[in-house]
Amino acid sequence: MSSERTAGAVLTVDLAAIAGNWRRLEDKTGQGRCAGVVKANAYGLGMARVAPALARAGCRVFFVAHIEEGVALRALLPAADIHVLNGALPGTEAEIRDARLVPVLNSLGDIERWQAFCAKCGEMLAADVHVDTGMARLGLPPSEFAVLAAEPARLSGIRLSHVMSHLACADEPEHPLNGRQLADFRAALARLPRAAASFANSSGIFLGADYHFDLARPGIALYGGNPQPGRPNPMAQVVRLQGKILQVRDVDTPQTVGYGATHRFTGPGRVATVAVGYADGFLRALSNSGCGWFGDVRAPIVGRVSMDLITLDVGSVPPHLAAPGAMVDLIGPNSPIDDVAAAAGTIGYEILTGLGDRYHRVYVGEAAA
Amino acid sequence: MSSERTAGAVLTVDLAAIAGNWRRLEDKTGQGRCAGVVKANAYGLGMARVAPALARAGCRVFFVAHIEEGVALRALLPAADIHVLNGALPGTEAEIRDARLVPVLNSLGDIERWQAFCAKCGEMLAADVHVDTGMARLGLPPSEFAVLAAEPARLSGIRLSHVMSHLACADEPEHPLNGRQLADFRAALARLPRAAASFANSSGIFLGADYHFDLARPGIALYGGNPQPGRPNPMAQVVRLQGKILQVRDVDTPQTVGYGATHRFTGPGRVATVAVGYADGFLRALSNSGCGWFGDVRAPIVGRVSMDLITLDVGSVPPHLAAPGAMVDLIGPNSPIDDVAAAAGTIGYEILTGLGDRYHRVYVGEAAA
Repeated sequence: MSSERTAGAVLTVDLAAIAGNWRRLEDKTGQGRCAGVVKANAYGLGMARVAPALARAGCRVFFVAHIEEGVALRALLPAADIHVLNGALPGTEAEIRDARLVPVLNSLGDIERWQAFCAKCGEMLAADVHVDTGMARLGLPPSEFAVLAAEPARLSGIRLSHVMSHLACADEPEHPLNGRQLADFRAALARLPRAAASFANSSGIFLGADYHFDLARPGIALYGGNPQPGRPNPMAQVVRLQGKILQVRDVDTPQTVGYGATHRFTGPGRVATVAVGYADGFLRALSNSGCGWFGDVRAPIVGRVSMDLITLDVGSVPPHLAAPGAMVDLIGPNSPIDDVAAAAGTIGYEILTGLGDRYHRVYVGEAAA
Repeated sequence: MSSERTAGAVLTVDLAAIAGNWRRLEDKTGQGRCAGVVKANAYGLGMARVAPALARAGCRVFFVAHIEEGVALRALLPAADIHVLNGALPGTEAEIRDARLVPVLNSLGDIERWQAFCAKCGEMLAADVHVDTGMARLGLPPSEFAVLAAEPARLSGIRLSHVMSHLACADEPEHPLNGRQLADFRAALARLPRAAASFANSSGIFLGADYHFDLARPGIALYGGNPQPGRPNPMAQVVRLQGKILQVRDVDTPQTVGYGATHRFTGPGRVATVAVGYADGFLRALSNSGCGWFGDVRAPIVGRVSMDLITLDVGSVPPHLAAPGAMVDLIGPNSPIDDVAAAAGTIGYEILTGLGDRYHRVYVGEAAA
């Protein structure tokens, strides 16, 4: 709804960088072995633009969380292979079939319902089976897996697409759970009917070829998040968020800033107010913690992030850069999403998926993608 | 885009409660002295539904943050008095005039540009003047105010609608800044051309009649947030968020839950996985901290909130309530927005403005409103 002129911020999404990141991951996993995770509106960046860019780069298999995301993606990519991680809620089977989605079956109950639906349709409809190996979130727990392994007929009538599992601690390469999950997943595969296997998320790809199997499911790494926290980020940055300065004011007497008077200037200073706030997903946890960048000059957030505004200490910024109408980088070359997240006590994923509706969004690199 | 059947959660917004809250506040401020703040899509609840409900309740004056919000509101309410808090960015004057919006002028520069625009149009266009008395965010700082007070001709040609200021600590009634801001605001009014005065936000209304002036600007209290933290909430709850259970599983061996393995079951237990995550604005800060409610039975969040899912310990919940397809209250009678916010280390405002796009939204109480 916004125009660059009236919006409080401009969000630039680099589709060529997303495509490049996907190709880099596919190089690691091997051709045809790398999917693209585009749930949550492609991690907040806009599935309608991101998914076609991935498809042009060669991505053929996509994962979403919700059925409705799958339906929307089907309209964009008629030929894609689309998997729905949250699976088939009771009563949604027809929607899944009609959009030719592949539900991930997470429990014996899911399998039983999908089998019944296939029988009713007289058609072997595709589905994945998710075996839990350590998340305790979705997927068959050990007790249900034992039943399935003992009674493979529970899968008859279903076209088994992939057997999958999900890593809990892949971003901590030394975590003992990684190796345990890998061993448990291999053991599970050996006890189920032959099917393609899918295991690694973004960080899992970097745990080594043992973790790759037939299909990796990267998400955050496509969008520039570092799959190897604490090491140099191998992925290209995708997002830039520039906030617009509404007002710059001098502080000449001791003065507090913002709600709760949590920041105090004791001497002269300068404050720039920027038209971005927590209603734009710029988390309130960044109060007195995050920063903006004017080129290479850092301007700390002072006071609390409010709903529609933040206040920056621009005392060190050349005045011609910090002026009403000028832009300041909130996410950008000097403040990648992982750094913004760290300042907010969270992870880059939450920064991305929170990116607000009020930003004016610009997509670049479409031709290259 | 969602249907109740396929969505991962249902968000119910009670328009009658919003209307009732507005009337209660208007009772306190006096007839015609209570505006409605509907910025940030009416605090995440949907301006298109909320603003007409407020108008039917008698609200005539509205505040938004962005010009584009004002333009959208104008299309909904042709006769309303609509004020834009973030004011007139350079080059946006024509949009403001065309939508008959009242910009809040926050600096001498804003005033100068609006005056020039009025002269160019040959029309006295309405505007507010915002005098800062302690936020250091938007509004004329003391140095600029002194210039304006000494040179009232700077306002000639402008139809001065309101002089306003904004409280920094109104939710802390004992905070000394409240009284200082009140005194400074009165002093400012005395030195400016006669105009209506607007000062109190939600909490400010509860600081007493001295703070009411001609127009109060409540936001959060309309939407059920407690304007008097630490005391009983005088406002009716507006929002209910019910998450859908995807899977319930037994834990029979010692087992960790979720990313980073941050929660450990040491004995038998039961986990319900719910289709709501931080991509829905259900903050990651609620990891191992928030809860769901099955009627009056509390089910703690165990493990990290992930992008599309949370996991609840439902060991104490009757099995027929915690079953696949059943709903759990994440915001509701037992967990009002302020409690959810406290568990996340934030304020109810951020919980509301973060409410996600993937929820199936239901509006009730429209007739009563």
